Amino acid sequence: MARRKATQSIQEFPLIRQLQRRHERRSPLIRKGIGDDAAVVSIPAGDWAVLTTDLLTEGIHFNLHTASPASIGYRAAMANLSDIAAMGSTPRFLLISIAIPAAIRTADIHALYRGLMSACDQHDVRLIGGDTSSSRRGLFLSITLLGTTPQGHALFRNGACVGDGIYVTGTLGDSLAGLQLLTDHHAPHRGTRLTKTDRDFLIERHRHPTARVREGLWLNQSQLATAAIDLSDGLSGDLRHVCEASRVGAVIDLARLPISSACRAYADRQKTDSGALALAGGEDYELLFTVAPRDEQKLERQARTRRFQVTKIGTIRPRRFGLQTVASDGTKAPLPVTSYRHFT
Amino acid sequence: MARRKATQSIQEFPLIRQLQRRHERRSPLIRKGIGDDAAVVSIPAGDWAVLTTDLLTEGIHFNLHTASPASIGYRAAMANLSDIAAMGSTPRFLLISIAIPAAIRTADIHALYRGLMSACDQHDVRLIGGDTSSSRRGLFLSITLLGTTPQGHALFRNGACVGDGIYVTGTLGDSLAGLQLLTDHHAPHRGTRLTKTDRDFLIERHRHPTARVREGLWLNQSQLATAAIDLSDGLSGDLRHVCEASRVGAVIDLARLPISSACRAYADRQKTDSGALALAGGEDYELLFTVAPRDEQKLERQARTRRFQVTKIGTIRPRRFGLQTVASDGTKAPLPVTSYRHFT
Repeated sequence: MARRKATQSIQEFPLIRQLQRRHERRSPLIRKGIGDDAAVVSIPAGDWAVLTTDLLTEGIHFNLHTASPASIGYRAAMANLSDIAAMGSTPRFLLISIAIPAAIRTADIHALYRGLMSACDQHDVRLIGGDTSSSRRGLFLSITLLGTTPQGHALFRNGACVGDGIYVTGTLGDSLAGLQLLTDHHAPHRGTRLTKTDRDFLIERHRHPTARVREGLWLNQSQLATAAIDLSDGLSGDLRHVCEASRVGAVIDLARLPISSACRAYADRQKTDSGALALAGGEDYELLFTVAPRDEQKLERQARTRRFQVTKIGTIRPRRFGLQTVASDGTKAPLPVTSYRHFT
Repeated sequence: MARRKATQSIQEFPLIRQLQRRHERRSPLIRKGIGDDAAVVSIPAGDWAVLTTDLLTEGIHFNLHTASPASIGYRAAMANLSDIAAMGSTPRFLLISIAIPAAIRTADIHALYRGLMSACDQHDVRLIGGDTSSSRRGLFLSITLLGTTPQGHALFRNGACVGDGIYVTGTLGDSLAGLQLLTDHHAPHRGTRLTKTDRDFLIERHRHPTARVREGLWLNQSQLATAAIDLSDGLSGDLRHVCEASRVGAVIDLARLPISSACRAYADRQKTDSGALALAGGEDYELLFTVAPRDEQKLERQARTRRFQVTKIGTIRPRRFGLQTVASDGTKAPLPVTSYRHFT
């Protein structure tokens, strides 16, 4: 947080200080916020610190021509909140670093921060610092989020055991469908028409995903999950991470994948398979987690009480089994390897 | 720390995972290092967490044509270590995010990490995570460092009181002299020749500055400093930050500025004033701190015992006094406003 003097656009710096001060909120846990060499915060007694960071680069993770600065900021914050949620932890403090090219309008930077902070405000996350720089080469955004969790209690990727049920929160594929609607809007409607409600729902799920922080805290506190990850790369990729970390295999029951009616309608229109969207779609920011067989009933009961949508979509198998899908007709196939393209 | 799939240079990702794993070290405080949704660490019981972050952008903070990747990495880590030192805290955990353009050689990325970790290894700082991305627009590096300090004990900028002595560690201006030697090497020698020893010393002070972590810990634990900051922008700029935060003025005695014999020899050669180098020179990463009059003797005694070089260079004055310098002949002048250009 040293305040480096840059060789250009030094007039940006008062703007950022103004932005950071505008978005700074008091908290009894913050001993020193923005404006010293470093921020100083209290960690609740006996808690572990949980840290995640993301670097977002123009032309790779976002494109200012097709996404609004507010949406870029919102989604950047939500991606980090989702990582903390996947650890079953409470997100608390945010650091924002930003490299700003000369061509960017001040209003766009304001909007980016508004987006970032609107995601954080939902979870009482406080801005405590960051760094700013000019950039000769496009906009870069780096976010670090600090969460906390009671000592000895965190959800990891590596705890899945053979026989565990595989669950997800919410519905899958909506964000990818929303992204396709935003970027392929000149594509012909191949099937039935999509209602405005469905279209708006899918685009909203892409633009404003919700990190499953409450669900993560519940899974951690209840000790019902044996492993967890957030779905940022898509079910197909992220399940692979859990299985690699846990040294197990898995089978996914395609008929059980939770797919919204809007996503089904979109898949119908595109004459595509909604299951494929659900497997490949990234940035849903739902949680994927595993549950020991003896706890599955208890988990489902607690989820109903709390009004959390959770769906069992498969089972952990021995490693030699690999990763498979099973269709409603019983056809088995290897889980596809997909690479989600985070670009809007 | 979600593993985003980028649209190009995806072959970089195994490299980074390999690098991060190579530089990962065990520690009983690390509950989960690289490879989950987030890192999980223990904070010593009752300690505060201290967080700093820096974003370094190609063409602004460094230039791959004139600085080696190892030196860029080393100095990036040291800048963050210095921020933690200025808070009187123990640096502990590092997150590295890096956006890599296609044109960068693998060997350069290896060297950048080696530089980063060689700075961290000096202070037992552990790599716990980060993020990686391709970049269409140059190399970007974002570093976050987490330190800890016993609850209630941290050095801030805002504690300086009227009458306090102003001190610095080490010598000032060496890094700027070293930078000028590196970048202006075709400039004619205007005065006396510089010995190879002096030249090497100044360049080394620029390339491999030392964060004053031990000195910061001593100042914090001994409760002898009323305020502290690290000299990253230069004495002139950083003293201003302390005075603004503490709502005070200051007078600096130019004759007392600690200047190395190498820096004096360089200034002679350049027919320039070594005091001006000391005031303007950034990235010395020495500490500037203030001490109540009743503690000055004790401080100087303890510094001698510990073999820390500290020099009293001035006195805190009332705010209306502003920021002044006084020369050896008693001439007073306003403290110059300088803007250090962090570019090599």
